[in-house]
Amino acid sequence: MLRVGIAGLGRLGARHAQALAWGARGCELVAACSPVETEREFARTQCGVERLHAELEPMLADPDIDAVVLVTPTSLHATQAIAALRAGKHVFVEKPLALNVEDCAAVLEVAAQHPRQVAMVGFVRRFDPHYQAAQRAIAAGEIGRPFIVNSQTCDLNDPEGFFVRFAPTSGGIFMDVSIHDIDLARWMLGSPRARRVFASGTNALHPALAECGDVDNGLAMIEFDGGARAVLYASRTMAHGHETSTEIIGTAGKLQVGEHAARDRIVRSDAHGVRHAVLKDFYERFESAFQAEMAAFVSACRGEQALPLALADALEATRIGLALTTSFREGRLVELD
Amino acid sequence: MLRVGIAGLGRLGARHAQALAWGARGCELVAACSPVETEREFARTQCGVERLHAELEPMLADPDIDAVVLVTPTSLHATQAIAALRAGKHVFVEKPLALNVEDCAAVLEVAAQHPRQVAMVGFVRRFDPHYQAAQRAIAAGEIGRPFIVNSQTCDLNDPEGFFVRFAPTSGGIFMDVSIHDIDLARWMLGSPRARRVFASGTNALHPALAECGDVDNGLAMIEFDGGARAVLYASRTMAHGHETSTEIIGTAGKLQVGEHAARDRIVRSDAHGVRHAVLKDFYERFESAFQAEMAAFVSACRGEQALPLALADALEATRIGLALTTSFREGRLVELD
Amino acid sequence: MLRVGIAGLGRLGARHAQALAWGARGCELVAACSPVETEREFARTQCGVERLHAELEPMLADPDIDAVVLVTPTSLHATQAIAALRAGKHVFVEKPLALNVEDCAAVLEVAAQHPRQVAMVGFVRRFDPHYQAAQRAIAAGEIGRPFIVNSQTCDLNDPEGFFVRFAPTSGGIFMDVSIHDIDLARWMLGSPRARRVFASGTNALHPALAECGDVDNGLAMIEFDGGARAVLYASRTMAHGHETSTEIIGTAGKLQVGEHAARDRIVRSDAHGVRHAVLKDFYERFESAFQAEMAAFVSACRGEQALPLALADALEATRIGLALTTSFREGRLVELD
Amino acid sequence: MLRVGIAGLGRLGARHAQALAWGARGCELVAACSPVETEREFARTQCGVERLHAELEPMLADPDIDAVVLVTPTSLHATQAIAALRAGKHVFVEKPLALNVEDCAAVLEVAAQHPRQVAMVGFVRRFDPHYQAAQRAIAAGEIGRPFIVNSQTCDLNDPEGFFVRFAPTSGGIFMDVSIHDIDLARWMLGSPRARRVFASGTNALHPALAECGDVDNGLAMIEFDGGARAVLYASRTMAHGHETSTEIIGTAGKLQVGEHAARDRIVRSDAHGVRHAVLKDFYERFESAFQAEMAAFVSACRGEQALPLALADALEATRIGLALTTSFREGRLVELD
Repeated sequence: MLRVGIAGLGRLGARHAQALAWGARGCELVAACSPVETEREFARTQCGVERLHAELEPMLADPDIDAVVLVTPTSLHATQAIAALRAGKHVFVEKPLALNVEDCAAVLEVAAQHPRQVAMVGFVRRFDPHYQAAQRAIAAGEIGRPFIVNSQTCDLNDPEGFFVRFAPTSGGIFMDVSIHDIDLARWMLGSPRARRVFASGTNALHPALAECGDVDNGLAMIEFDGGARAVLYASRTMAHGHETSTEIIGTAGKLQVGEHAARDRIVRSDAHGVRHAVLKDFYERFESAFQAEMAAFVSACRGEQALPLALADALEATRIGLALTTSFREGRLVELD
Repeated sequence: MLRVGIAGLGRLGARHAQALAWGARGCELVAACSPVETEREFARTQCGVERLHAELEPMLADPDIDAVVLVTPTSLHATQAIAALRAGKHVFVEKPLALNVEDCAAVLEVAAQHPRQVAMVGFVRRFDPHYQAAQRAIAAGEIGRPFIVNSQTCDLNDPEGFFVRFAPTSGGIFMDVSIHDIDLARWMLGSPRARRVFASGTNALHPALAECGDVDNGLAMIEFDGGARAVLYASRTMAHGHETSTEIIGTAGKLQVGEHAARDRIVRSDAHGVRHAVLKDFYERFESAFQAEMAAFVSACRGEQALPLALADALEATRIGLALTTSFREGRLVELD
Repeated sequence: MLRVGIAGLGRLGARHAQALAWGARGCELVAACSPVETEREFARTQCGVERLHAELEPMLADPDIDAVVLVTPTSLHATQAIAALRAGKHVFVEKPLALNVEDCAAVLEVAAQHPRQVAMVGFVRRFDPHYQAAQRAIAAGEIGRPFIVNSQTCDLNDPEGFFVRFAPTSGGIFMDVSIHDIDLARWMLGSPRARRVFASGTNALHPALAECGDVDNGLAMIEFDGGARAVLYASRTMAHGHETSTEIIGTAGKLQVGEHAARDRIVRSDAHGVRHAVLKDFYERFESAFQAEMAAFVSACRGEQALPLALADALEATRIGLALTTSFREGRLVELD
Repeated sequence: MLRVGIAGLGRLGARHAQALAWGARGCELVAACSPVETEREFARTQCGVERLHAELEPMLADPDIDAVVLVTPTSLHATQAIAALRAGKHVFVEKPLALNVEDCAAVLEVAAQHPRQVAMVGFVRRFDPHYQAAQRAIAAGEIGRPFIVNSQTCDLNDPEGFFVRFAPTSGGIFMDVSIHDIDLARWMLGSPRARRVFASGTNALHPALAECGDVDNGLAMIEFDGGARAVLYASRTMAHGHETSTEIIGTAGKLQVGEHAARDRIVRSDAHGVRHAVLKDFYERFESAFQAEMAAFVSACRGEQALPLALADALEATRIGLALTTSFREGRLVELD
């Protein structure tokens, strides 16, 4: 049994904790760490965790723990991941790995020094069965050579603008949201390197974002070496629900994953037309992927299965996300070396 | 130029008149007949017709007229069609040909005596491009051997219940509505003969129909010789719009024609979900088919093209529709000989 | 912890066993019973079960077992359920409860004598999230008053005809397949009683079924007290996959559940058109429902939650399924009292 | 009756000629002009035109002609339109109006000197019923304030690469194809002015295009004054058919027009999945729009109805299309003044 400790039990952390406590085989959630008392209480009552810490250090020092899952603020990711690796733990870090390339590189370097420990970044879509089926079809040549990816991550508008308060530390819409589409595009296209990027955006409903140089609707174009291209769209202002969808265009066909975001297998015909309900948020869309992600981490730590992504993928996604942010803020094309 | 006269300029008649006046090539609408003055006025002002009659006889006596189109009450169809044939005219009659088998047979007999004249019943779906494409695919063997047809004709509910007032003379829902699906099922299945039928129904919103032995929702099952089966559904009470749809099931696949009845190529995503607008009525759905139907009649009269249906098909549809009506009213299975 | 024993580890039994062993909370799978050695071996190696029996009696005699799950041949269901109840166990029986009304009634009678024990029949669709959402919408009045259900259960054709060998003991297509749609129709319509039924059918690809009075495509019509109607279709011969779909028509709208049976959230555009893959079988469609069903049984046994269906529902479904079978075999309408 | 002459009877010209000869009311196609004998022969035999010219001048000099329709090579559009206006004719020119801004401006200037004559550029999508319904919905505020348009025009791949031979004079993919999407985006967004653009592209299947600085897949981003944005995609290499589709995103919802490009109302379920056929080309998609476009031109010439677009729209589309071409060829952002 892999013995796991989790740090951070906010919205996403709580889900990871429950997946580890009840869903994933071959592991036991034995410790939890959070500066917030209600979060520790959650770990105790909802996940049956007894070893509770207000800080990370004692959890890393606990010799009974094999692996840690970090769902802490992004600014802490790199430092904590490095500390965990040095403490001899396998480590899972939520995306993004860091808000600059140097920090990512530092984690990669330390991870390379601990080759027997697993180090993984949470690009959850790589564990979604729909995206996995699409990627397998592409790898099998079913759409010929893929050359364009159009990918969007669009959230239901939150009239109360919770994310606006979160904006100053989020890294901006391209780092916070499009980073998923960046990783996805690279995965579908066979992991090419980006050469040049351009980003644009507009504020549709949350002008306050302008204060921290952010927008509620971001558009991006990425030119990869070898000719492939990606067009990305991230939005905080959808009226209908959460729609993460991705189109991969190849020389022999195209795939569209997730479009229309049906909440269930029900079609309703009434005075509003013929219609279906829409997924409410990222969690509802990727519920099973979040579980599969934890299961894959546990399985990799136990040496049963290799991971479908490397730390280098997280570094490359960060590099591209930062270039898009620069492009948008400085109003220019950005070349990557 | 084929010279055509039309009798009856009600809702459907007016459309036929305009198709003949403006849309169909190779013909001229030269005469119109209606006991209703506003309808004659419509023919004069909207269709440019000068020879206007209150009764049919003078129009049939007019030697300048080659063909007549009858869009009169059903009870008059057989007598008028026979008179037109005897007057040497080609004749188009709206469906149903008659409300009993004897009258249908009488028209067939007279038509057989005038083999050089065209006699056609208006089963408009045979001229719809979508149904035509489906039938061609089936005839080409693309779904193997077809063995089941599920077909429905469902109207948007009319809260004012116009059709309730029309019910006493309509022949009932199976003769008035399902007759289209009966003809369609036979067309798709290769024109088999019916052997046994069962009908059921229920009144969802218009209980007044019970007074004339009718229902606003009718269900039917038809057993054909050779093993094929049809299930029909006719409704007056849809909440979303007009949906005529047909499923044809074969040993190598199935086709569904018309399901969901999208009004246009627009998908809308908003607080009501992801949705499309729905066709409002039969006319909107079959607008191009009505035009093609008149064009086919004209073309057949001019000897350019054979018709895709025979009077015998109308007789068979009537025979089945009547058997369903009997089954429903008497609450029993009805065998056809 | 509820201690459960399972009897029968065939295709469906094996799934139930795994759900009990790994998925459902609050229970432990402690015993398994099967006359087949490989099935017992499966229970031991795949489900961690140690108490293995070739016959049911010793398992029922085991005082450490609280509940039994019966996934045995239909002909044994009633006798075994009664024995389990008398042994003081909670009992889950796969559908159908029995192939005649008397046996169903006998189980109900014994269950009534043991009111503190749970007795449940496996109508898995009642645990499917899509059907549950539809039923909730209907109960909330969102489609007005429901009055027609069209429901189909259509399997991908098995060219090797496995089910043909199984046909002599299956009870026929209406008892084996349509029974699900019967229960579903009653659930959606508010549990009305059937008054009269008619069934028809045809053999499209497996004429050998005729030897045991069965067909590979069955059609049924059910008239309920109060005016509601159901039209059912069961098929063994689909070319595209497994499609279980249900349409519920109400006075203010209609719902369609499961139509087109998309296997995933991928749309593919290529030389074959714009298309999606289709579910392969019942197990793939109802995977999560099978898990929820076992969880609901465990939860009911533990007194945490009431069941969404009663044994009386199973009796009524059997009564209707038998009437349909009689209607089909004797070629007549069948009245139910 | 408006008396019309047409110049150019190639693929598109022939369609316009037939629409004028047979479909549009209130006009008569009386003259045709083409240097190609087979085209003049087509006008005579298929459209009943008697006045046939090898050159434009005599047709412009004919006092019996009220209006001319120019479907000639793009390089001739501006000069011919000016000559027609000076000859006192109403004039319809196919898109694009010209391959540079100066020529467009010259036509506008001459048109301003002849305010009683109609001058119209053929942006056919403005006459498509689906796009019209979308634009009406937006104008009525049904999606709130529109702020992003994603629009694509994607052709079925032509393995013989006809368009490659045509590339040197086409103006490039942004001028030849995306110009439609540019006009559409402006129409949907309320006719804003473009401020800055970026274009990228890749050659997927036709590397020979590189010789004339063109690509078979082009991507574009347009920043408009006021914050609205457009993302465009043009492709020559689709595997499934012709798909022109446009998404308009607003603060209260989004519309998608034309996605999936279903050829008809038929869904097929077979061994290839659940699928529909796809439109083959632009002509099939816009057949009724081409007819409505000619009808609108005739109607405007007759003073019955205003046009839904102005020459200034054509000038603006050209200005943007040229900026995109520059951006792509020079690998830089292009600011518009």
